[in-house]
Amino acid sequence: MGRRKDIAIELGAEDGRPVFLALAASITSEIERGRLKPGDPLPGTRALARSLKLNRNTVDAAYHELTMQGWLAAEPSRGTFVAHDLPDFGPAQTRRGIASKASPAAATARRPMLRLSDGAPDARLLPAAEFARAFRNALAGPSFLTACAHGDPRGSPMLREALAAHLKEERGLTAAPDDILVARGSQMALFLAASAVLSSGQAIAVETPGYPLAWAAFRAAGARVVGVPVDGGGLDIDALQRLAEREKGLKAVYLTPHHQYPTTVTLGAARRLRLLDLARRFGLAIIEDDYDHEYRFDGRPVLPMAARAAADHRIVYVGSLSKLLAPGIRVGYAVAERGLLQRMADRREAIDRQGDLPLENAIAGLILDGTLRRHGRKARRVYQARRDHLAGLLNERFGDVASFALPAGGLAIWLQLDGGVSAETWAARAEGLGLAILPGIRFALDATRPPEAFRLGFASLSEAEHVRAVDLMARAGPAQE
Amino acid sequence: MGRRKDIAIELGAEDGRPVFLALAASITSEIERGRLKPGDPLPGTRALARSLKLNRNTVDAAYHELTMQGWLAAEPSRGTFVAHDLPDFGPAQTRRGIASKASPAAATARRPMLRLSDGAPDARLLPAAEFARAFRNALAGPSFLTACAHGDPRGSPMLREALAAHLKEERGLTAAPDDILVARGSQMALFLAASAVLSSGQAIAVETPGYPLAWAAFRAAGARVVGVPVDGGGLDIDALQRLAEREKGLKAVYLTPHHQYPTTVTLGAARRLRLLDLARRFGLAIIEDDYDHEYRFDGRPVLPMAARAAADHRIVYVGSLSKLLAPGIRVGYAVAERGLLQRMADRREAIDRQGDLPLENAIAGLILDGTLRRHGRKARRVYQARRDHLAGLLNERFGDVASFALPAGGLAIWLQLDGGVSAETWAARAEGLGLAILPGIRFALDATRPPEAFRLGFASLSEAEHVRAVDLMARAGPAQE
Repeated sequence: MGRRKDIAIELGAEDGRPVFLALAASITSEIERGRLKPGDPLPGTRALARSLKLNRNTVDAAYHELTMQGWLAAEPSRGTFVAHDLPDFGPAQTRRGIASKASPAAATARRPMLRLSDGAPDARLLPAAEFARAFRNALAGPSFLTACAHGDPRGSPMLREALAAHLKEERGLTAAPDDILVARGSQMALFLAASAVLSSGQAIAVETPGYPLAWAAFRAAGARVVGVPVDGGGLDIDALQRLAEREKGLKAVYLTPHHQYPTTVTLGAARRLRLLDLARRFGLAIIEDDYDHEYRFDGRPVLPMAARAAADHRIVYVGSLSKLLAPGIRVGYAVAERGLLQRMADRREAIDRQGDLPLENAIAGLILDGTLRRHGRKARRVYQARRDHLAGLLNERFGDVASFALPAGGLAIWLQLDGGVSAETWAARAEGLGLAILPGIRFALDATRPPEAFRLGFASLSEAEHVRAVDLMARAGPAQE
Repeated sequence: MGRRKDIAIELGAEDGRPVFLALAASITSEIERGRLKPGDPLPGTRALARSLKLNRNTVDAAYHELTMQGWLAAEPSRGTFVAHDLPDFGPAQTRRGIASKASPAAATARRPMLRLSDGAPDARLLPAAEFARAFRNALAGPSFLTACAHGDPRGSPMLREALAAHLKEERGLTAAPDDILVARGSQMALFLAASAVLSSGQAIAVETPGYPLAWAAFRAAGARVVGVPVDGGGLDIDALQRLAEREKGLKAVYLTPHHQYPTTVTLGAARRLRLLDLARRFGLAIIEDDYDHEYRFDGRPVLPMAARAAADHRIVYVGSLSKLLAPGIRVGYAVAERGLLQRMADRREAIDRQGDLPLENAIAGLILDGTLRRHGRKARRVYQARRDHLAGLLNERFGDVASFALPAGGLAIWLQLDGGVSAETWAARAEGLGLAILPGIRFALDATRPPEAFRLGFASLSEAEHVRAVDLMARAGPAQE
């Protein structure tokens, strides 16, 4: 905590805005200039009001506004402080800060937007020192030089070997290194899988609500995307069967059975067996997306369908390491039988040649030396607490207009709104207050009947940030209409 | 240099092979087990012959064979040593080494292949310490956390800004950061460019001989690939015009005007102007691949066509940083007008979502702090010396059966064989001796009339390795038939 400083907080030039907003802009400008740093205490409201000749309520309003926006943090009985989790404003930002001082309006416009992601991990938890060290080792080692000479479009042999052991141990998947293709995040794996199992114009069944970036990948591969509804038990297998019976071009089905995206439901054993049976009868390939397998809080993770399927099933199992590390670190993979995998590798070479070897070998190092497993355990503990915390807040504040089932795993809560409440309207009002939340329409294949719900990622924000987010949601919500 | 050790070199079990090969296999096995390390001296041939009760010529032959293969290095008047540039054989290799000791044949089969690449840089020159430091900074900085929240499919804003300044300064290209898309190596940029300028079934004209991975990218984007011949002046513009007149589906042309791949020729000003004129008349988009712009040894680099084109030309300019760093570090980029670039970004999001932010920001750091420019200057000096050295060797050894024009830039020599000499046969024989070289047929769109030539990358090997490579070429060559 910084010691108390004498900061010259002034009001910007009059511009017709309420005085409390002008004061707020002056404070953010001080933060951007670096004169107020994370953890610094703000003057008491009474003292500041006196020195600026303002009503104390005006100062209160400015502090409250900035607390809501995430610039400040109020600590009961201790006072108000510059928030700890602000980015460090380096020299470049300082210059912008000075420039913007003349325009307090601009400073307020750049307030940090608080975002409830769709289920991203918290990049602040990344074991950055270990990762940087592993990267340095990967650049220095002879494996880098050797690998540089002939890059394999299936990815670094070292990482495929590490993944094979990891998948066997953690997920009951017996895959040899040659059954694995390392791709750039699961996104590329989905594109390659669709390219390998579908010809142009053939159809793939997908969950709706579902994962729109997967649909984009399938369409980029030339496929038609056809929706199958999801209910409280996951993918509606009866509906899939009716679709398979009437749609002759249907050649594949894509699903997220572990934690359905976006509704978080786990597909039960009975539906899994029926799906495998249907796939065999209608000759459907299965693309199983197990994007956040390791985040299971209640009970044990459910084994992938790919771990139980028979040899005559054509399954591409897709996983991601980005959920364990950070969204900006893009490593995913696919497991499939060799013929399929070879087609994927050929396509991968055509669009991307090969992966980044130092990065892939660094991640292999983190798997082999146990860093990734230790990090996963820690992250699971942190995220479980965040899940429970956000769940508590949602129950407390929105119990009368919304409901949800506590997700057994995954990094998001699917909050369903009661009849008559529009998630889209609510989200738009929240955006105006500085909070980004994702309404159900973002996940609907058919936008005419969007689910009235929010997917609220809880992992990437701290508990204090959850409090702010839920406050902003409440201010934007139907009770305020 | 290691001190002289007493190494137990033994002959493996008799297997009908010449004794000198059995002895060679025994030595490589000792190296793989880690008992002989890089730099270690071998026993003198006389002493070893005596202790093994062999003819000294047999020991000589084994040492010579291993020197040719790159396991050993002979130093005049000092003796023979284990080569310094071997990969370090870790524990895994040691185990394999022990297993293979029972089978000397297997050990010889795993001899390191000497490869003349198609023009790869030398990963051993990579400023690894600076790169590792930049990566660590990128992981630690607030820009990583900020960027992780909302990745842009056009790539890290920091890297696009650094590239914009770099391209303006070095290549006369005035591109704003928003005109640039950072992709995974030039491979992805080529795929995205073709996806953006062509509809399925439309045709793109390409150079032949040319770059097969570009053709694969265009085909993956649904395009038909049509060849246009290359002569001593580069792309044959008359042939392109005839093609454009008869082929109505032709919508784009792909070329490598700076250092034509594989023939290394620079397209002259007159042909460039005619090409721009043709493109306008026939409505062709131009994909200009400037894959190794910075490696110009004689005179100044020729400015890209994209730097001179008029506003109504549709040009996608493609570059790569992999040639400056290492083939296993995959960062390329495309420059195009915003509408085109947006289509590329949409497709990129569908197949790959976004890039690796720590990697992209690390590279931005290396551009901004001058490391990349310093490295480029150093690499240019080293590669120019290697070009001249290989050129001297080729003239000396193959002046009677082959010829080449010294390339003004780029990282390869195009060695054209005299009539009656088959490059493919020669390459196959070289492969049998442990040398990989790329015959002209690898670059021909129409394999029925392959160019009788080799593309010999000179940058990735040291001068000592060039000597070995040319020796192996000579042993495999037509004079030996």
